[in-house]
Amino acid sequence: MSGPPPRTAIEPTRAEDYAEWYQQVVRQADLADHAPVRGCMIIKPWGYALWENTQRALDGMFKATGHRNAYFPLFIPLSFLEKEAEHVEGFAKECAVVTHHRLVAGPEGGLVPDPEARLAEPLVVRPTSETIIGAAFAQWVQSYRDLPLLINQWANVVRWEMRTRLFLRTAEFLWQEGHTAHATEAEAREETARMLDVYRTFAEQWMAMPVVAGPKTDAERFPGAVETHAIEAMMQDRKALQAGTSHFLGQNFARASGIRFQAADGSEQYAWTTSWGVSTRLLGALVMTHGDDDGLVLPPRLAPAHVAVWPVLRDDADRARVLEAIEVLARALRATRWADRTLEVEVDLRDVRGPDKQWEWIRKGVPLRIEVGPRDLQSGTVGVARRDRPHRERLVWPLHEVAARVGEVLSDMQTQLLQKALAFRDAYTVALDDAGELEAFFTPRDAQRPEIHGGFALAHWCGGSACEQRAHAFKASIRVVPVHGIAAARAAERIEERGRCVFCGGPSPRRVLFAKAY
Amino acid sequence: MSGPPPRTAIEPTRAEDYAEWYQQVVRQADLADHAPVRGCMIIKPWGYALWENTQRALDGMFKATGHRNAYFPLFIPLSFLEKEAEHVEGFAKECAVVTHHRLVAGPEGGLVPDPEARLAEPLVVRPTSETIIGAAFAQWVQSYRDLPLLINQWANVVRWEMRTRLFLRTAEFLWQEGHTAHATEAEAREETARMLDVYRTFAEQWMAMPVVAGPKTDAERFPGAVETHAIEAMMQDRKALQAGTSHFLGQNFARASGIRFQAADGSEQYAWTTSWGVSTRLLGALVMTHGDDDGLVLPPRLAPAHVAVWPVLRDDADRARVLEAIEVLARALRATRWADRTLEVEVDLRDVRGPDKQWEWIRKGVPLRIEVGPRDLQSGTVGVARRDRPHRERLVWPLHEVAARVGEVLSDMQTQLLQKALAFRDAYTVALDDAGELEAFFTPRDAQRPEIHGGFALAHWCGGSACEQRAHAFKASIRVVPVHGIAAARAAERIEERGRCVFCGGPSPRRVLFAKAY
Repeated sequence: MSGPPPRTAIEPTRAEDYAEWYQQVVRQADLADHAPVRGCMIIKPWGYALWENTQRALDGMFKATGHRNAYFPLFIPLSFLEKEAEHVEGFAKECAVVTHHRLVAGPEGGLVPDPEARLAEPLVVRPTSETIIGAAFAQWVQSYRDLPLLINQWANVVRWEMRTRLFLRTAEFLWQEGHTAHATEAEAREETARMLDVYRTFAEQWMAMPVVAGPKTDAERFPGAVETHAIEAMMQDRKALQAGTSHFLGQNFARASGIRFQAADGSEQYAWTTSWGVSTRLLGALVMTHGDDDGLVLPPRLAPAHVAVWPVLRDDADRARVLEAIEVLARALRATRWADRTLEVEVDLRDVRGPDKQWEWIRKGVPLRIEVGPRDLQSGTVGVARRDRPHRERLVWPLHEVAARVGEVLSDMQTQLLQKALAFRDAYTVALDDAGELEAFFTPRDAQRPEIHGGFALAHWCGGSACEQRAHAFKASIRVVPVHGIAAARAAERIEERGRCVFCGGPSPRRVLFAKAY
Repeated sequence: MSGPPPRTAIEPTRAEDYAEWYQQVVRQADLADHAPVRGCMIIKPWGYALWENTQRALDGMFKATGHRNAYFPLFIPLSFLEKEAEHVEGFAKECAVVTHHRLVAGPEGGLVPDPEARLAEPLVVRPTSETIIGAAFAQWVQSYRDLPLLINQWANVVRWEMRTRLFLRTAEFLWQEGHTAHATEAEAREETARMLDVYRTFAEQWMAMPVVAGPKTDAERFPGAVETHAIEAMMQDRKALQAGTSHFLGQNFARASGIRFQAADGSEQYAWTTSWGVSTRLLGALVMTHGDDDGLVLPPRLAPAHVAVWPVLRDDADRARVLEAIEVLARALRATRWADRTLEVEVDLRDVRGPDKQWEWIRKGVPLRIEVGPRDLQSGTVGVARRDRPHRERLVWPLHEVAARVGEVLSDMQTQLLQKALAFRDAYTVALDDAGELEAFFTPRDAQRPEIHGGFALAHWCGGSACEQRAHAFKASIRVVPVHGIAAARAAERIEERGRCVFCGGPSPRRVLFAKAY
């Protein structure tokens, strides 16, 4: 970058063009890029490190709740997909189909699928693995002693998408899918709730992203599930993003796959199963929860690096001393533990101008930035810049105290980010009691900026699908029947009250959450 | 398991039927199973935990050598695969080809690929990612300042295989593939050697598996590489297993993908690239290096659990006391660090007979087994069984000293396993100077057991491909031109000597390693 600095590091700003701002943050923070394969993405090292930290935190929570990882095939035979009627309806539509297992030279040169290597039964690249894992569970489960069976898989999945956006909607994405089998309905329901809570905890405590948790309506259920529960977060354009789902599958997949067991009383029964998943979509949610007009802002617990340090050198005479001071500082930081891991430090010695380095680390969202120059060595102090503060602001600390003080600041940032996101969500969450008000709430004020609307609305709903669909007219939907996480001052106390459906006036036991959604 | 105990926990034994012994160990140690999808496998929790430990160790070594992880698309457009002539020849033959992106109801019910959703350009499920990563590198690399570019990917890959064996050869497998780009040939060659050495170190220090390292002959090169280096290990049937490869790709893929950079002198140049990989095949190598006729034997550094503990209860009166003692023991063990991680303990409280538990943990290869019963509480001592000793042998230790003493035993096991494997390999490695002797060495002595032959032979070779192929007549091949790892007392000093080709009598600068191979 050269020439005069832009008004903001990211152009356009959120206010100017939110969708383009998002793409620019993802690109300029070096998180990911479009692949030359339609609808696929390349997750670049900074983005992948964020995913690795996400995996590490979640994997620890899965293991702490008794789950073990395993790996199942990428390919699903068509006959498996066909086993569960609702499921096939939901997933067979847009998927990658493997039909051949060999290429040969074509008549015009180049390669073509070998007509003699056509598969007898086409294979689908897994869009989700209930059916193939169900077939394995049917083998593994014989007796009640084999239950509960608590399995998780980290994998890639493919769902053909026509319109894609990095992290939010891509043909291939990375995820984890938990699959469990239980002897009783109660245990399976408990598991569904437990894993939803794991997701909520991860979103709040690691991502610093407040979420509303609860069951989905029937219309929004996972194909084949009895109940789907989700966590939903508000992005900065006030739209909802579904960040994780936990499904109670009843005995639907157990019947489809034949997961039977001999109970303690000798009877043969079908197991009760669950599945639950989060994906690289979480990285998109992270960008849109905390990002600002200068780029990414990372919650320290997930940041690939906590601190970026680089030298400011005016002439070669200072070089050795400054680099040595940086080396000492980096070593002290790397020996410091914070939030259950040692601090990660990027020492940036590239042959690049200091201001360009600064802006690169700002765009990448590293929590703390430290420049070290000869004057700092003279004064024995150094300026520490927080990513969540204006970029010129500095904490001035004695150089030898930096490592000892950093943890407190990181903890403060982690807390502040959650508070700020919570305040944002609460500011745009209201309780509404009238269909006209609801429609107005979701109608853009400005034709130039169709994405800007009210936010989250808590309103009464009779439970009928006709009324539910009326919200689609203004591009909103019922995201969740909230049971956890709405703390909006004006709205919180009003969720549980009885009322009348905002559309038909029918009785309603509680308010539900309406929003526009990603 | 009930009835009289078998002679050995695994039937058949290695001596009776080595190939079937292998399948039985994999199945009975609960490592993996055949999937209902042709040629694919399911990696079960015990096997996957072994892979996770493999990943953790290697990933740490990759990061310590400056590499960063990223993720690239599963699908490769045909046009990409066609870019490098040798490469396409090597990989286009047997691969999964995606031709459609949607299913529809077929004329006879059921689903069929939607003829209207045929892809304009078929996609190949990646068999390896040089071409797709090369295209990304071409975007990322502009200047010498962007080099070296050191990337690794953990991923699944697919190579259609007609005859499959769990871990050793499956259509889909898991692996890592490193891809790097450098400004100079020397740096790229150095990287190739560095990563081969990382693999050798991992094989020896984590897997306790001795390997011979060095370049492959031209005939055995990776398609498109200038040079391929490999590590080769001897299995217990004396065959060689290629356990990891590191390729110096020269400028072949840089030219094919257009990875160009502006050098410091302003000229435009092609980068020099490398790639290197190991896969879940390593788990097969582990089974065949250390397994015995009772099942898996795990090197402690990779074991998913170091210790299995279970109670021996005669009546309910003892129950609470014994379980409490086990709880205390497990807590002490889990607080103990060994080889850079805390000890993992399986407390087995399943409602299963004690002897059955014992044999299950023997088959699964857990390094140490501890049964705790009321008599142990009385004596204050407990018997600790090592997996690498006869199953009745016990170390008798004071209960409260178990945690403190375990580390030393685990270290000893790790060392002993390597020594034993090394002694085995050296016992079946010879230097031979005559074509007839070489043929006899690779000819089975017993028609009933065609797999048993001599082992590794170090012989002179002129470097010509005609002579190289003569070994194929007796199903042997040149595995590697050894530069590291052969310590066979009778053979070591004879590798570097000059001699005459065992086939044609032409001059040979050094001996090469002949073996039958997986």
